Amino acid sequence: MSETNGIAQIVTLNRPQQRNAISLQIVEELLQQLQRAEEDKSVRALVLRGAGGNFCAGGDIGDMLAAQQRASDGDAEAFYRLNRRFGELLEKFNRSRLVIIALLEGAVMGGGVGLACIADIAIADSAAKFSLPETRLGLPPAQIAPFVVSRLGLSQSRRLALSGATIDAPQAQRVGLCHLLADGSAALEQELQAQLQAIRACAPAALAATKQLLLASAQVADDEQLSRLLDRGAEAFSNAIQGHEGREGARAFLEKRAAEWQY
Amino acid sequence: MSETNGIAQIVTLNRPQQRNAISLQIVEELLQQLQRAEEDKSVRALVLRGAGGNFCAGGDIGDMLAAQQRASDGDAEAFYRLNRRFGELLEKFNRSRLVIIALLEGAVMGGGVGLACIADIAIADSAAKFSLPETRLGLPPAQIAPFVVSRLGLSQSRRLALSGATIDAPQAQRVGLCHLLADGSAALEQELQAQLQAIRACAPAALAATKQLLLASAQVADDEQLSRLLDRGAEAFSNAIQGHEGREGARAFLEKRAAEWQY
Amino acid sequence: MSETNGIAQIVTLNRPQQRNAISLQIVEELLQQLQRAEEDKSVRALVLRGAGGNFCAGGDIGDMLAAQQRASDGDAEAFYRLNRRFGELLEKFNRSRLVIIALLEGAVMGGGVGLACIADIAIADSAAKFSLPETRLGLPPAQIAPFVVSRLGLSQSRRLALSGATIDAPQAQRVGLCHLLADGSAALEQELQAQLQAIRACAPAALAATKQLLLASAQVADDEQLSRLLDRGAEAFSNAIQGHEGREGARAFLEKRAAEWQY
Repeated sequence: MSETNGIAQIVTLNRPQQRNAISLQIVEELLQQLQRAEEDKSVRALVLRGAGGNFCAGGDIGDMLAAQQRASDGDAEAFYRLNRRFGELLEKFNRSRLVIIALLEGAVMGGGVGLACIADIAIADSAAKFSLPETRLGLPPAQIAPFVVSRLGLSQSRRLALSGATIDAPQAQRVGLCHLLADGSAALEQELQAQLQAIRACAPAALAATKQLLLASAQVADDEQLSRLLDRGAEAFSNAIQGHEGREGARAFLEKRAAEWQY
Repeated sequence: MSETNGIAQIVTLNRPQQRNAISLQIVEELLQQLQRAEEDKSVRALVLRGAGGNFCAGGDIGDMLAAQQRASDGDAEAFYRLNRRFGELLEKFNRSRLVIIALLEGAVMGGGVGLACIADIAIADSAAKFSLPETRLGLPPAQIAPFVVSRLGLSQSRRLALSGATIDAPQAQRVGLCHLLADGSAALEQELQAQLQAIRACAPAALAATKQLLLASAQVADDEQLSRLLDRGAEAFSNAIQGHEGREGARAFLEKRAAEWQY
Repeated sequence: MSETNGIAQIVTLNRPQQRNAISLQIVEELLQQLQRAEEDKSVRALVLRGAGGNFCAGGDIGDMLAAQQRASDGDAEAFYRLNRRFGELLEKFNRSRLVIIALLEGAVMGGGVGLACIADIAIADSAAKFSLPETRLGLPPAQIAPFVVSRLGLSQSRRLALSGATIDAPQAQRVGLCHLLADGSAALEQELQAQLQAIRACAPAALAATKQLLLASAQVADDEQLSRLLDRGAEAFSNAIQGHEGREGARAFLEKRAAEWQY
């Protein structure tokens, strides 16, 4: 389920009976919706939410049974492919030029935590619950592990994944799993609108360039790489300030008016 | 001092007169106890605690004097070896397949902070005090530095190590040095039991695989390494779900009963 | 504006009318003051603050206009050099042997956030406001990105940079942008004195060695690099404990007196 709302594409996980468990079909749909949103120049943000009061309770049982059947039929890589495809989704959403906003309500479990971790802005309902229950089922949280560690740091990731703990929204905020709290669905909607309003004031190409620089910053491994990243940043700055957005931004600032991208 | 308690090996630093300062002898004993616990298939967790109300106040003065004597006698590497051996302990505990739980009471200083930083779950008494006092003695916190940075991030590590500050337990929790607070020793014991109860519900091999994936996640340096780690994660998932634990986990889930590892 | 105060060099950004916006001239002056402080063996800490109630509101408009003029005159790299030079300042301050303390008041914006992020100890007035408003002007926060990510982690950096959000001092403390809060300028001064007092108790060479080890710790990319860093740490420890500071530290400890560097 997907709709465009001004600068934002709203994508809704819509399997409320399964608490929006992510099936392979959902994965493919999400990838299509991401691509469509990225191709639409008017879209700056993608909002990911769940229908029926939950965000996402993890992987889909039906898919597991189907993969089991294929494995029994001799397809040795059935489970590998099923699992890896979700990781591809996380990689693509994580690297997207769009500002990804996640609205976290109800159950945020397993793969749902993975989705929360690739959001640039994660807003949680105060009553949401977060957990990594995989090891209780005899499984590792395999595709989400790198995204959880990138989001929470190694220490909080170890604590949560190695005890299967359930944490509440204030704890999730404290460990960085979500950035903002909202008390109930009206407040959640209001906070979403406030964030979209903030993003309207930001130039689209500058947002995309910024996101690339931030992602690259997290991969700096020594002083020389830092120096090269700063070179690249200076190029990006020089291009931006002499480009369309930078010139419009300077004019709008001097003329004390909203820039053309703020609507 | 070491005892097995169901799924957990309890290891107690037991030099209360020295506030459990870590001597070379203690280092060797800890390494032996770790190895023994890792070889015992029934053990999933190792609990590290201190006797007499303190966790650990750092390095041992007696060892320093002995190394000084050896250095005077011409052994140029006496201090190097003494220091480096503690780092080997931290490396081995950090990479252990076991879930490491630290119970932090009283003084948690220097090397004691290092031990806290390799715990997967660190529970602190509300009255515990944490500090990195090395530079006051003219020394760098040499072996613990990487583990402190991995735990707290670079920023909080710089602030604490470069001012020799003492912080209390709520501050330690805020910067991620401990995960959970308990008010007094009865509450500490209760929280330990709650964590062990949670770990009982988690499959042992899945815990070990998860810990490996999390540690590897913290070392991802570019998008290609991320992609390879996700490949490896998909293999681990595929093996686990088709292996003994995964099959038992699925059956127990469908039959709404505890899995065989939950006792 | 710069003055020496015992172990500390106090550097004041002094363009209050421009809320201490960082011009190229200021960058050059800061680099000179850093070099002078590093060459003065009695100096252990550098305090960075702003005049007139603000810390720093970002880049300088006058510089931008001058670079625009040069670019119009055919100097294609005018903006590149202007931007990159500020990154050089951040690199040098970040790697300095000195303990860098930032006093954050009023506006802390854009490049000002970059300066806050290279401080070892960041103390904020409770009323300070922090923001990364670059994308509103059509620009990426190019030179500061790696320092922001190193300070806040990738997740909080994405949230702040991709929404242009303004956060208050308690939020800044929660995400690690500052370490300590002070309520008003008298309290800020008091906290500064307390931190300088703590640093007086720390040996200068030990502080410098510690800072190097911490910075190197943040660049460890695999277990082998970790092992080599621990080797290097053991060498630093061995040299320190047998060197002047280590011997004086041990004597002072045993004689229950202040070490010679504590004055």
